[in-house]
Amino acid sequence: MDPRLEYLSKFFQKTSSKPIENYALTRLWHKLDSSEIQMIPQQYINRHEEKYALTDVFFPQIGLHVEVNEEAHYKSAARIQQDNIRKQEIEKRTGHRVEVIDCRGTLEEIHARIDNIASIIHNEIGQKRQHGSLKTWRPAEARDPKYWRQKPVIRVEDEIILSNIEHICQLFEADFRKTKRGFLRKGAIQHPAQPSFVIWWPSSVPRSGWINNKLDGDVLSITESHRFPEKNREHFFNTSRSTEKRIIFYFEVDALGFSGYHFLGVFELDRDRSNEQDGCFWKRISTKFEFSQTN
Amino acid sequence: MDPRLEYLSKFFQKTSSKPIENYALTRLWHKLDSSEIQMIPQQYINRHEEKYALTDVFFPQIGLHVEVNEEAHYKSAARIQQDNIRKQEIEKRTGHRVEVIDCRGTLEEIHARIDNIASIIHNEIGQKRQHGSLKTWRPAEARDPKYWRQKPVIRVEDEIILSNIEHICQLFEADFRKTKRGFLRKGAIQHPAQPSFVIWWPSSVPRSGWINNKLDGDVLSITESHRFPEKNREHFFNTSRSTEKRIIFYFEVDALGFSGYHFLGVFELDRDRSNEQDGCFWKRISTKFEFSQTN
Repeated sequence: MDPRLEYLSKFFQKTSSKPIENYALTRLWHKLDSSEIQMIPQQYINRHEEKYALTDVFFPQIGLHVEVNEEAHYKSAARIQQDNIRKQEIEKRTGHRVEVIDCRGTLEEIHARIDNIASIIHNEIGQKRQHGSLKTWRPAEARDPKYWRQKPVIRVEDEIILSNIEHICQLFEADFRKTKRGFLRKGAIQHPAQPSFVIWWPSSVPRSGWINNKLDGDVLSITESHRFPEKNREHFFNTSRSTEKRIIFYFEVDALGFSGYHFLGVFELDRDRSNEQDGCFWKRISTKFEFSQTN
Repeated sequence: MDPRLEYLSKFFQKTSSKPIENYALTRLWHKLDSSEIQMIPQQYINRHEEKYALTDVFFPQIGLHVEVNEEAHYKSAARIQQDNIRKQEIEKRTGHRVEVIDCRGTLEEIHARIDNIASIIHNEIGQKRQHGSLKTWRPAEARDPKYWRQKPVIRVEDEIILSNIEHICQLFEADFRKTKRGFLRKGAIQHPAQPSFVIWWPSSVPRSGWINNKLDGDVLSITESHRFPEKNREHFFNTSRSTEKRIIFYFEVDALGFSGYHFLGVFELDRDRSNEQDGCFWKRISTKFEFSQTN
């Protein structure tokens, strides 16, 4: 099956418990009628310290969110105000725009509103294309290690998601067999040509006692700690003696249930934050990796 | 909510366990981009004595069925042949056409096939409109007794579905209060102005022991029998002495979960088939009822 069809059909299936949202979003998509436009469901946005929002759809190529508001959203003045505050906070926080599909009124009125948003998106995508700055949606390539192997450099903005550890090894021409340790799978492998780099594939799900959280901040960090204090301490002492840099592919499952190892860039040990209690913190030092670079 | 939006969103929600079908049918609908076209889900078709088929969508205004065939339909020569036989049987049996959306290949190829079927439908609807023979889809009117009350005649082809017994009474200006019998609701009421007609609202679901099946044949019939033999016999004797004609509104729940009383026409007792064991059989004598007619 075409991976775009798989993605899109899962995308709309996700909305099946909200039939009006499904109707509005399928219309928006089919009206756009372009297979180069990328849609992301349930985009997570920090509103402030304690609150977050999930928008219904995000169009990352043009920084635009779409929300579908069913009749219930307009039932009270309080609810309307609450929605407006939410919209403003999202726009302020992200610098993106939020368009709302108001699902009240006749079918013709709702159609007209959706078609209006479709033409806004069309225009903005068209402008990006004219300026040569449109990043076409190509989910099959995003997952293909051979495709990225041909590039001189890989970047976080490319949104590379590899399906498994074998693909990660292919990308760096590392020996996949060396990732096996008896019945276990190692969590990392040294770069075969650039020994100061370690290729690491931590997971958002704890594995064999290891906890690898992603910490958003001014600089992205990944934790590396073990639930057994002794193991944690030992690992901290070993790691702090090394000067390795880590190329990180972080395993996550997205809102549609697609799982994979996301390229997050190159990291080094954050010596200020790491300690024998909390374990190691890896902070990002680059959002790209050049295949040709020397150590 | 616009009743068309309610209908359409339920229609597509019904396909949510089949995400490819949902994708293909939402595209077909939004490409048609007309709110006057009627789509019916899961149309029941007798293939022959023992087999039946449910097509994915039926367009009754132009007699066209659409089937969505996912990749699995093409996995073996036997399956392909089986699908072809099914298609031919449906076409022969109904005189309708069946168009198939083949969901193999790239997203662009699938889009092109759907768009092709959309333009076939567009053309045929356009021709009907030109000839003045297009029956526009108006689900709100179908359920409005005031709308039909203004007409000189109601016909089975109008697909009138009334929501409740009160609406049936409104249509004939009958006294709704007279349908109550203590805590019970009567199953019928005499026409207030034309006493030879009885307005009857049997149900596909057995009620208070009464069984009212719809029997498709050369002539449509409705059964009226009671599960207690004695009651059945008594009712047959009383009914067979009467010469009443019955205006029937038959209660059913459709594939999308919408329930209502469907106008089926005018019926009289089938004296050849009715008897004290099997109960009464009512056979259709007219598919229309004229409000102005005298007895």
